Amino acid sequence: MSLLLQPIKEIPLIRQGDDLCQILMEALNLENIDLQDNDILVITQKIISKAEGQLVNIAAIEPSTRAKQIAATCQKDPRLVEVILSESREVVRVAKDTLIVEHKLGFICANAGVDHSNIENTRNESEIWYLKLPVDPDLSAQKIRAFYLEKYGVNIGVMVIDSHGRAWRQGIVGIMIGTAGVPALVDMRGQTDLFGEPLRITQIGAADELAAAASLVMGQADEHIPAVHVRGFPYALSDKTQLGDVLRDKEKDFFR
Amino acid sequence: MSLLLQPIKEIPLIRQGDDLCQILMEALNLENIDLQDNDILVITQKIISKAEGQLVNIAAIEPSTRAKQIAATCQKDPRLVEVILSESREVVRVAKDTLIVEHKLGFICANAGVDHSNIENTRNESEIWYLKLPVDPDLSAQKIRAFYLEKYGVNIGVMVIDSHGRAWRQGIVGIMIGTAGVPALVDMRGQTDLFGEPLRITQIGAADELAAAASLVMGQADEHIPAVHVRGFPYALSDKTQLGDVLRDKEKDFFR
Repeated sequence: MSLLLQPIKEIPLIRQGDDLCQILMEALNLENIDLQDNDILVITQKIISKAEGQLVNIAAIEPSTRAKQIAATCQKDPRLVEVILSESREVVRVAKDTLIVEHKLGFICANAGVDHSNIENTRNESEIWYLKLPVDPDLSAQKIRAFYLEKYGVNIGVMVIDSHGRAWRQGIVGIMIGTAGVPALVDMRGQTDLFGEPLRITQIGAADELAAAASLVMGQADEHIPAVHVRGFPYALSDKTQLGDVLRDKEKDFFR
Repeated sequence: MSLLLQPIKEIPLIRQGDDLCQILMEALNLENIDLQDNDILVITQKIISKAEGQLVNIAAIEPSTRAKQIAATCQKDPRLVEVILSESREVVRVAKDTLIVEHKLGFICANAGVDHSNIENTRNESEIWYLKLPVDPDLSAQKIRAFYLEKYGVNIGVMVIDSHGRAWRQGIVGIMIGTAGVPALVDMRGQTDLFGEPLRITQIGAADELAAAASLVMGQADEHIPAVHVRGFPYALSDKTQLGDVLRDKEKDFFR
C-alpha cells in the first residue's frame, strides 16, 4: 500500500485557548481533505503547547543554585535551565552546549523540549518567552481523535510529535511524544518471513517511523507546517496504545 | 509539498550476481512508475547484500576463544558471534540476548546487521546461512544512481536502509546505511523561523527520516517489500553526501 503524507497548511498562528479541533477541521476543509477511517493526523507539539498556554517568560524566573551550577557547565541561561529542570525527572548528560534530561513524561531529550523557535518575542528584557511541551500529549491526541469519532463517526489516529537528537548519529528526527490510535509499537511475534521462518525483529517502532516521515513534510524553517495528514498507514489502529509503550525501562536501557 | 511513498513489489528473489539496476528498472515499469528528477529509490540492504553474495554459512566457521566468551554472555551461537566480530570494529555492549557493536562501516547496531530472516535455509546442520550487510552501501547506492543518470538522464537519489534498535526507546526503525544523492544531514544554519529568528535546530537527519518512512511501507514480514519509490522529498539532492556525514564522532558521543 502507498503511504501519502499531505501538509495541512491553512492553520493560523495558534494562541492560548484556541480550539484546535475546530481549527484543524477548517484547515482540512480548505485543503479538500476528507478524513477516512485509518487516516492519521500528525501534529507538532508546538501548536498543542501554544493552545494550552505552555509559554513561560524566563525573565520572571529566579534560578536555583543547582540551575546556576548546571548553567555554568552547559553555558545556557540559568533561568532557562531552571525551567528545563522543572520539566525534568533527571539530568542525563550535561556538557558545554548540551543539557540532556529525562523529561517528566519519561523520554530522554535535549533541554526538556523547552524551545523558543517559532515563538513571537518582543526583544524586551522583561519578556523572554519559551514554550514548554504539552502537559499530556497522549491526552491531547485522544481529545482530537474523540472529536472526529463523535462528530463525524470517523476512526482516525492522532499523533503529537517533536524532533529529537539521537545517540550515535547527528541530526534531529521527528519522534512521537503522544499518540491516540497510532500504535507506538507493532509486535511481530508469531509472524514469519518470506520462507516461513519466525521473524528476528519482534517490535517495530511504527509511530516513530511515521513521526519521522511527517517531520520531513513539516520542515523546520519559516514555512513550518504544523500538521500533516496521512493516508495508507500499514498497521491497524489500536485503542490502547500510548507514549509509555515505546519508552525503555531505565533498568533495561544500556545507554543511560 | 506532499510526500508519496510507493512500494515496488514486482522484485523477484535476488541471488548472487543479479543485476539490481536492471531488475529495479523492470519492476518500476511493471508498477508504471516513471522516474522523475528528485525522485528517490529506497532499497533494503537485504537485496543489495544478496546480489553481492554476502551470505555466509556459519556451520563452516571455527569460532575464536573471544567469540566463545562473548557468545557465553549473550547466549548466541559462537559461530555467529565470530561472524559478527569479523564485521565489527568494536563491541559496544554485551549482555544476555544482546550484542551491540560498532559495525566496520561506522554505525552502532545489534549483531553487526548479520541476520537470517528472509533467507532460504535448508535446515541442514552443515548449512546455516546468514547474510552480512553490503560491503559499501554508499557505493551500491551510487552505482544505481549513476545507472539512471546515464541511461535515462534522470537525477534521482538512492538510499540503502536497514532497521536498527535505539537507545532509550523500544522498537526498531528504518535507518539509512548508504546514500547517493539523498542528503544525510540538511543544515539549517542561517535559516529563520516564522518570526525571523535564527533556528535552534541546525541539522536535520533527513535521510534517516526518509528511511523510517520507507520502512513503514516495506514492512518486515512475509509480504516484505524490498524497495520503495519516493516522490516529494522536500530537500535538494546532493552529490557529496554519504553515510559518514551522519555518524557522530566517538569522542563527541555522550552515549557510547
